[in-house]
Amino acid sequence: MSAIKKKMKLKPAFLLCFAPLCVQALWPIPKSLQTGSGLLKLSSTFDINILVTNPPQDLLDAVTRTKGFLKTDKLQRLVVGRGANDSAALAQAPSLSRLTLSLAPGSTVRPIATEAAEDVALRNEVYSLSVPSNGSDATIVASTTLGLFRGLTTFNQMFYDLQGITYSFEAPITIVNDAPVFPYRGFMLDTARHFFPVADIKRTLDAMSMVKMSTLHWHAVDSQSFPIEIPGFPELSQKGAYSAEETYSTADVQDIVKYAGARGIDVMVELDTPSHASAISNSHPEHVACAPGSPAVSGETRPPGGLRIATPATQTFAANFMAAIAKTLPSRLFSTGGDEVNVNCYTKDAQTQADLKSSGKTLDQAISDFVVMEQKALLAIGKTPVVWEEMAIDHNVALSNKTIVLVWHSENIAPVATKGLRFIHAHSDYFYLDCGGGSWLGNRPTLNSWCDPFKTWQKAYTFDPLANVTTAQKPLIMGGQQLLWTEQSSAENVDSIVWPRAAVSAEIFWTGATLPTGVARNVAEALPRLHDVRYRMVQRGIRAIPLQPTWCALRPHACDD
Amino acid sequence: MSAIKKKMKLKPAFLLCFAPLCVQALWPIPKSLQTGSGLLKLSSTFDINILVTNPPQDLLDAVTRTKGFLKTDKLQRLVVGRGANDSAALAQAPSLSRLTLSLAPGSTVRPIATEAAEDVALRNEVYSLSVPSNGSDATIVASTTLGLFRGLTTFNQMFYDLQGITYSFEAPITIVNDAPVFPYRGFMLDTARHFFPVADIKRTLDAMSMVKMSTLHWHAVDSQSFPIEIPGFPELSQKGAYSAEETYSTADVQDIVKYAGARGIDVMVELDTPSHASAISNSHPEHVACAPGSPAVSGETRPPGGLRIATPATQTFAANFMAAIAKTLPSRLFSTGGDEVNVNCYTKDAQTQADLKSSGKTLDQAISDFVVMEQKALLAIGKTPVVWEEMAIDHNVALSNKTIVLVWHSENIAPVATKGLRFIHAHSDYFYLDCGGGSWLGNRPTLNSWCDPFKTWQKAYTFDPLANVTTAQKPLIMGGQQLLWTEQSSAENVDSIVWPRAAVSAEIFWTGATLPTGVARNVAEALPRLHDVRYRMVQRGIRAIPLQPTWCALRPHACDD
Repeated sequence: MSAIKKKMKLKPAFLLCFAPLCVQALWPIPKSLQTGSGLLKLSSTFDINILVTNPPQDLLDAVTRTKGFLKTDKLQRLVVGRGANDSAALAQAPSLSRLTLSLAPGSTVRPIATEAAEDVALRNEVYSLSVPSNGSDATIVASTTLGLFRGLTTFNQMFYDLQGITYSFEAPITIVNDAPVFPYRGFMLDTARHFFPVADIKRTLDAMSMVKMSTLHWHAVDSQSFPIEIPGFPELSQKGAYSAEETYSTADVQDIVKYAGARGIDVMVELDTPSHASAISNSHPEHVACAPGSPAVSGETRPPGGLRIATPATQTFAANFMAAIAKTLPSRLFSTGGDEVNVNCYTKDAQTQADLKSSGKTLDQAISDFVVMEQKALLAIGKTPVVWEEMAIDHNVALSNKTIVLVWHSENIAPVATKGLRFIHAHSDYFYLDCGGGSWLGNRPTLNSWCDPFKTWQKAYTFDPLANVTTAQKPLIMGGQQLLWTEQSSAENVDSIVWPRAAVSAEIFWTGATLPTGVARNVAEALPRLHDVRYRMVQRGIRAIPLQPTWCALRPHACDD
Repeated sequence: MSAIKKKMKLKPAFLLCFAPLCVQALWPIPKSLQTGSGLLKLSSTFDINILVTNPPQDLLDAVTRTKGFLKTDKLQRLVVGRGANDSAALAQAPSLSRLTLSLAPGSTVRPIATEAAEDVALRNEVYSLSVPSNGSDATIVASTTLGLFRGLTTFNQMFYDLQGITYSFEAPITIVNDAPVFPYRGFMLDTARHFFPVADIKRTLDAMSMVKMSTLHWHAVDSQSFPIEIPGFPELSQKGAYSAEETYSTADVQDIVKYAGARGIDVMVELDTPSHASAISNSHPEHVACAPGSPAVSGETRPPGGLRIATPATQTFAANFMAAIAKTLPSRLFSTGGDEVNVNCYTKDAQTQADLKSSGKTLDQAISDFVVMEQKALLAIGKTPVVWEEMAIDHNVALSNKTIVLVWHSENIAPVATKGLRFIHAHSDYFYLDCGGGSWLGNRPTLNSWCDPFKTWQKAYTFDPLANVTTAQKPLIMGGQQLLWTEQSSAENVDSIVWPRAAVSAEIFWTGATLPTGVARNVAEALPRLHDVRYRMVQRGIRAIPLQPTWCALRPHACDD
């Protein structure tokens, strides 16, 4: 017993994580954290009590799932022997019978999904968690159901399996007012280059939820295909999807959005315009310049095609189909895209040139009018418009001051911030998960990927969200995300190309620059915890790749350099 | 009917493959090939007749599997509409009721597995195949059951699915005496950095078999773990495997070897010595220099450790455990490894220095004696010893002239060939599948993989097996392979990191430099066929990645550059 007692002393988490027999597995690591090293096992009668009046169904479901995971994860500790050394002490360890969830007095009770879709500036994910070492009730307290859900996720990460015993080796655990530094912690999936079945998207949402991500940026359509059904515009997907089977029906979209919301994830749909829009030409050739079959235009995507930004009917059409689906979605955020406008296309398109001439506008004026019309349609239904950086920087678009900008070149952080626009870090040089897999062009034997090399988890982890931003501009930062463009990805490899790498931004934008000990976040400290994320994902059927040989994963810091 | 007739003209395969509506899907492409463009559907009573007296069970099983695949592959054509345009013509197309398999007069009937394990210089995989366009019996003729099996694989690749109809669009098809240019067409899997369950290895063998690969190079052990049970030396895996569950029992090994053999694949096991042998120190610390716990030695693996090459007892030990498992395996080939000997380790190891002093040998003399003793033990039981290039080049080892050398730096082809040794192309600069995924070291935030960049399929495809070899030296080339070192790979991503890339060397070393048309092999021609390989693998549950957006895969050459 004395050995166990001795273990119970509180130690700073930093020291624990460098101890050879300990993996401090919380990810993203809470901003405040104190842990001990006492063993604490879950009682066979363990239960989670919800001390919330009229708890919403998605909170009840989250509790049920958590209880399930505590039984089914069966994740062994990442140490030599996989926890076998705990066996004797575990027999005598205290048992935890109950975790209670409660909301702070005065809190409003709303579904997790409602909280997750709240305006990014108003989202409340804060929670406090206490796990005493003596078997007394553990508690999670929050101001919202979303906060309780984040606390449940943390609680789950503390538990391991040894021969059917579910236990923590870090009791007591105290987390006070853990909350993210940034509200937007996302992952972008492109479902246009390849179609991803609903089940694969749900599995991706499961993984995102495990690391407290808040937003799926669903790049739903692109030049190659238009798989998402737009209410009132069924022809877009009927003729623009790869096939009827490779389509997200309105029911599928609602299913995905509901599944995400229940897991604390907001779904921001993007319908990319005016370029990257060739697939619209299958149903509406009248709206698309440079569509397949037109004379070749330099710099165009394969297939080529952009919406006729200068044509009034096309402007109305785009604004209408954006609003038609946006109004069916709970998210405040909706992206109209706007990356990589191909000016050459519009210069060569007779219709666009005629419309510019008759209206007396420059091309950039037409682009601005086009985008403004889209934004007005979204603002009219209470949405916050999102665009890619080109709209803010290259084309002088009269963007709404409510706009949030996706910045994909880190050198464009300052120019966007200077315009006073809110933005999301989505940088190709840190966060593009598809880089480094070689060129997807068919006849370029020696070409590597355009954004070579592979963006390692280590490189991503060193990204500093505050670099190139003045103190006054800091509130403009909504957060950030890793992104998967799917020229060379499909359901077959989505797990292994995304996980565990995409967990990196989940921590950067939750935890901020420093560990709970005050030490700067660093890859050496992070790796053992990221191994743990990976191994737990594998236990849940997510095919995350290993980051090191098993030998190294079981011996923190033995393979540091 | 006239349209169908018109389609039946024979055309060179080269032209067909550049036609926008055609994907010539054979891989590796036969050395002799004539195809038409007639539709031919499989009759509901389609059967395969084996005109072989006392056919071996593995041939019967291969026929059963082929008949199954023809029903279950359900691979649609990779064209716009996925073959829907064939629908009307298919209704009137001739039906094929029978494929007959026969051996040329005088052939000996042996199991496929026996033929596959034949000496590399004596293997016979030749087959001829004819599929008439009018529904007359198709035929495969060969001199061995292995040849028949290769022909079955080709036959299978010709068929697609449209609404439950299995059909070819290329009848008539004539292949005369197709045979590989090189006998060794391999894939190397490292099961030491990560353990791969038997089911994953079998799935890998399935995929290898689909592209007529002949050899699994099983890099069974390394510094990190020793997962394979050695008869008579059970302690090696009992103490050297990551866990009891992460062990290949003798029964597992036999299961894998048998499964491979039945699919035309020889299994060459490698037990890497004298370096990369740290895992042996768990059971036999007396035989290992620089084992974990010893003072650090520069350049050592993690964990460090090499067999004591100068110690007579260790020399005997290594030779004995090599022979102990080699004699249980059908393959003629057995690799004793030999890459990356760390001289620093032996310089610092007191035991080794004492043994060198007492014997009066230099380090290289001791290495030579060590390897020669291993080779003698293998030669005594009829095996062909295989080593990595360092044994031939760096340490002046007195190798048997029967040795086959694994060359992993393409600049070492000429030095090995100059020694008159047979060799296998296994180059890190073309064929290492693990390159480009970033460093696996824990505290090197900006480091990329040591063999960056990612070795694209295109780069691999441009490898010329005959470069840097004189005409007289050509017979020394046994073939080649792609390789997966598994620091960052596990069962979770083995499919997607290996396939379809590893199919590239299967074609290089089967087809040789030219297409059946006489045109040089080239990536533009290959890509539509490689897409087909990938899509068929996915249909069989192998999670091969896509090489281009679906839009491109359905439109050959539309995304060439």
